Amino acid sequence: MAVNKDQLEEIESLRSEISQTSRVTAPELESILYKPIEVLDHGFIRVIDYMGDDTSIVQSARVSYGKGTKQISNDKGLIKYLMRHRHSTPFEMCEIKFHIKLPIFIARQWIRHRTANVNEYSARYSILDKEFYIPSPENLAAQSATNNQGRGDALTTEEASNVIDILRRDAEQTYSNYETLLNENSSGETIDDNKAGIARELARMNLTLNTYTQWYWKIDLNNLLHFLALRADGHAQYEIRVYADAMLDIVRKWVPLTYAAFEDYRVGGTEVSAKEINLIKKLIKGEKVSFEEEGLSKREWAELQRKFDIK
Amino acid sequence: MAVNKDQLEEIESLRSEISQTSRVTAPELESILYKPIEVLDHGFIRVIDYMGDDTSIVQSARVSYGKGTKQISNDKGLIKYLMRHRHSTPFEMCEIKFHIKLPIFIARQWIRHRTANVNEYSARYSILDKEFYIPSPENLAAQSATNNQGRGDALTTEEASNVIDILRRDAEQTYSNYETLLNENSSGETIDDNKAGIARELARMNLTLNTYTQWYWKIDLNNLLHFLALRADGHAQYEIRVYADAMLDIVRKWVPLTYAAFEDYRVGGTEVSAKEINLIKKLIKGEKVSFEEEGLSKREWAELQRKFDIK
Amino acid sequence: MAVNKDQLEEIESLRSEISQTSRVTAPELESILYKPIEVLDHGFIRVIDYMGDDTSIVQSARVSYGKGTKQISNDKGLIKYLMRHRHSTPFEMCEIKFHIKLPIFIARQWIRHRTANVNEYSARYSILDKEFYIPSPENLAAQSATNNQGRGDALTTEEASNVIDILRRDAEQTYSNYETLLNENSSGETIDDNKAGIARELARMNLTLNTYTQWYWKIDLNNLLHFLALRADGHAQYEIRVYADAMLDIVRKWVPLTYAAFEDYRVGGTEVSAKEINLIKKLIKGEKVSFEEEGLSKREWAELQRKFDIK
Amino acid sequence: MAVNKDQLEEIESLRSEISQTSRVTAPELESILYKPIEVLDHGFIRVIDYMGDDTSIVQSARVSYGKGTKQISNDKGLIKYLMRHRHSTPFEMCEIKFHIKLPIFIARQWIRHRTANVNEYSARYSILDKEFYIPSPENLAAQSATNNQGRGDALTTEEASNVIDILRRDAEQTYSNYETLLNENSSGETIDDNKAGIARELARMNLTLNTYTQWYWKIDLNNLLHFLALRADGHAQYEIRVYADAMLDIVRKWVPLTYAAFEDYRVGGTEVSAKEINLIKKLIKGEKVSFEEEGLSKREWAELQRKFDIK
Repeated sequence: MAVNKDQLEEIESLRSEISQTSRVTAPELESILYKPIEVLDHGFIRVIDYMGDDTSIVQSARVSYGKGTKQISNDKGLIKYLMRHRHSTPFEMCEIKFHIKLPIFIARQWIRHRTANVNEYSARYSILDKEFYIPSPENLAAQSATNNQGRGDALTTEEASNVIDILRRDAEQTYSNYETLLNENSSGETIDDNKAGIARELARMNLTLNTYTQWYWKIDLNNLLHFLALRADGHAQYEIRVYADAMLDIVRKWVPLTYAAFEDYRVGGTEVSAKEINLIKKLIKGEKVSFEEEGLSKREWAELQRKFDIK
Repeated sequence: MAVNKDQLEEIESLRSEISQTSRVTAPELESILYKPIEVLDHGFIRVIDYMGDDTSIVQSARVSYGKGTKQISNDKGLIKYLMRHRHSTPFEMCEIKFHIKLPIFIARQWIRHRTANVNEYSARYSILDKEFYIPSPENLAAQSATNNQGRGDALTTEEASNVIDILRRDAEQTYSNYETLLNENSSGETIDDNKAGIARELARMNLTLNTYTQWYWKIDLNNLLHFLALRADGHAQYEIRVYADAMLDIVRKWVPLTYAAFEDYRVGGTEVSAKEINLIKKLIKGEKVSFEEEGLSKREWAELQRKFDIK
Repeated sequence: MAVNKDQLEEIESLRSEISQTSRVTAPELESILYKPIEVLDHGFIRVIDYMGDDTSIVQSARVSYGKGTKQISNDKGLIKYLMRHRHSTPFEMCEIKFHIKLPIFIARQWIRHRTANVNEYSARYSILDKEFYIPSPENLAAQSATNNQGRGDALTTEEASNVIDILRRDAEQTYSNYETLLNENSSGETIDDNKAGIARELARMNLTLNTYTQWYWKIDLNNLLHFLALRADGHAQYEIRVYADAMLDIVRKWVPLTYAAFEDYRVGGTEVSAKEINLIKKLIKGEKVSFEEEGLSKREWAELQRKFDIK
Repeated sequence: MAVNKDQLEEIESLRSEISQTSRVTAPELESILYKPIEVLDHGFIRVIDYMGDDTSIVQSARVSYGKGTKQISNDKGLIKYLMRHRHSTPFEMCEIKFHIKLPIFIARQWIRHRTANVNEYSARYSILDKEFYIPSPENLAAQSATNNQGRGDALTTEEASNVIDILRRDAEQTYSNYETLLNENSSGETIDDNKAGIARELARMNLTLNTYTQWYWKIDLNNLLHFLALRADGHAQYEIRVYADAMLDIVRKWVPLTYAAFEDYRVGGTEVSAKEINLIKKLIKGEKVSFEEEGLSKREWAELQRKFDIK
């Protein structure tokens, strides 16, 4: 269970405080505000606050005195135009803030996106909870033979079971020794009155990278879409992709017109190089092509064939 | 008049649309939302949207599940602590969006702060209004004799009047020629059917730097305070300082605890160097001091005397 | 002439100071270091400093102890791979610094790219030179009928000549009044001993937007390529495109492998949406297509036809 | 030993390739270029590349055609002035690139500074070395009783010895299981031909946070100084402070004038609030003061007493 009873009560208390505002609101997003969406075995993602909606993008693109336009169709067209031509600044005018609980090795990948505001739970200051990510058997896989940074075949049931045993045993042992080093258990009780224990900033180094951490993470819509384009992609590691997928659904609730344009132009779209354009032109004209003659590498050609169903 | 009747109606229409939200709200800020605050002769600043309040800073500093704390006194103490020790990331968790109308030469100074999101009214795309900043006589002053980038004595009434005449005449003439170049007046009517006019992206180059522009400007609270520390300072140019002063008042309405801490530690505070600390230590002990012996320059000494009332 | 005799001497003096370094060097770039490349009528761009070359990208992508690799072919392949998959951080490991002289209205467009370091010549502190951009007749054009932010047909000789007259006359008059307002001419001599003049920070507002300014501008290679993709594009305003073109040539001299990959994947390449991919698939298979049935707008279809030579 | 024989040879090979350049060079920095400076038990920091020196700061502050000035005394004065008044942009005109090896829990603290370019060694792609940080006994200490995020008293010899045993044992065991999970040892040899092993991106989660990682880290001088002001400070965790101290020494070699100004105004200097200024004024005048009456908290008063030797 990612969130305990006390925390759920705090969350419900926040949800029940309704205020009046003349700011724009996104009703579908309000309906899930503060609520934890479970991700992985102990993680979650929840929306804490947001600013703006689809009309805010239109409004700032036009530097207008009032709202976007009277007609939704115009807003939709403009948003598609902005997305298509990568006019990114109007999308920066919407902002969202999340509370996220995630394994440390995923947090390290996540933080490489520098264009966000972050406050992480401090293990110099506080004791981390006893929670580690243990993959479910179907998410365990061997190193990919073709992709140096991906997964290949699934493991056998027996090997998967052994892997899970190792991960669980090592995490539990290092956490137990973390308490010993602190001379304090996770409830804050001293273990041995005759010992000093070491500072939290030191003890934490004994934890494994699948220990959960949590942070507040705030980002504008443009940078969020950039993050999602990379992390909701099939090449992203499964353990970060599940967070990205949950966020994609949040984006759909928040700014549906932007979401639709993003799906068409970014998620489902692709880039083609100058050489690939030439090759496609010939294919369309029904001419014979040779990828070597067009200057494509074998790998580029394989990717292009897959993308455009080329025999 | 900075805002015309149609625009005021649009603004009132926005203000009258009240929604319910479970986000935190800042009631004092809601009371001025969308309303233009007049600055200079044709400029304004108005708050379009905001995210968070004082409790949001506490909430993210603690990475908490609910609100900051139950007691306001604790929130106040924590915010003071964060401000004092320049723990800046929690202040990044609040965000505000302005619509600002300002002279181009001030916009050029403003934009040097790069940590904001901006959408400016495009003079490639649209025709700029016929509005230029003309200083009032009391704000006209000679070049400072002591400060290479500041103002000194006020002008005589006669000289001020001549200055204003020149500024007005040149602005009007160049604007009139802007219309001629466009072959279109500011209402969008063609002037001479036998002429082509030149593209807007070209014609704009004939305008003077006191022409007004406008933009949407969105920034987090931490970077806003940094901007205000520089631009509400006595060394800032008068024409940007009046915008900063208006924003300071907005900050006070939005996050009163943060505002109070900012006033104490940043606006009213100062920095002292290692050498100056040594000198002050001696002064406190009642020892004789010589600024030269302490390694201060004449200028540093003069500044220090002024700051600490040293005879 | 963009650079005067004294300045040229300073530049030659810098060029003649040769030092030894064990840093990587880019010999082709060294050959033009500090030299002004003329752009527009009074502008220039010159490279002041740089860090890294193609091998630095490989080196940091691999986090290696030594240089990239022994074989150039491997470096080339890796750089192509990084460019193709938008792995942008290794390109951030190269840095370049320019000194640029450009008209103010172009500087305002330029500065919207926020990911660079800038020091601009201060008109609060100093007096601007009497230099304004006057377009040559062949670069004067009417507003485009189809593109709201572009140019259309060229002007007649007569109309072009009138336009140039207006621009020159207004620039000269406002500059002359700038001197009057300062009570100082551009050589720093007082004009009238009985007058005070106004502060520089005020007087500058009387100048027109085609007045030249200058700045130091430093940026990493990744952000520079992003800038060039937008500003060397056919949709960019001519007056900024000529600077981008000059920089493209500099990039070619500096990091030839990166330049080649950039040309193939970015400059000559394009993006296609999910709907466009479907349509292209059908075209390749020789099927009949209707852009409406595929969900493309008329405008998208026209663009796609142009890009892929579709009849 | 932080760097092995092969790596040292690569480094020496780089150092021996001397080129000619007309860029500015920093001879003292050249003398240590590429050389690893050892930090902690297996870490290091080495300078890979740099751009600019003290004169570059002056040059860009003046937007000059040549070098800063002819006289060093002028450069020194200007750099002090810029530092004192926090005119930060000229310091952004110098850039430096490091290769750093550091424990993961320190890398996580480090990366919170977002204004740098980073390429980290990828544990999705490669196998991490068997190297973990084990503190030496004198750096082990109990949690501070007064500072929630710091260290207090040193441990007894016996307790220190137990702590080190735990850290070493857990790190070795989890690393050994990391190899088992990969089914590959650190030399890349398969352990058991009948097993698949799991993907690297998964196996890494079993490692402890004191495992070493490495990255290329590039930053401009202004942001580096900001990092050093925080991380070379007494309140920073010892394990990051030793890296900051090594970098301070590098800064001294690179830009000695900037280093001196930084020491005086930032490292040795302090900030005082409006209330503290009032209190100091009274002390200087020899008046009696009461910190409560001046509105200081007990904690602020204690800090102020310490800073200014107040009895």
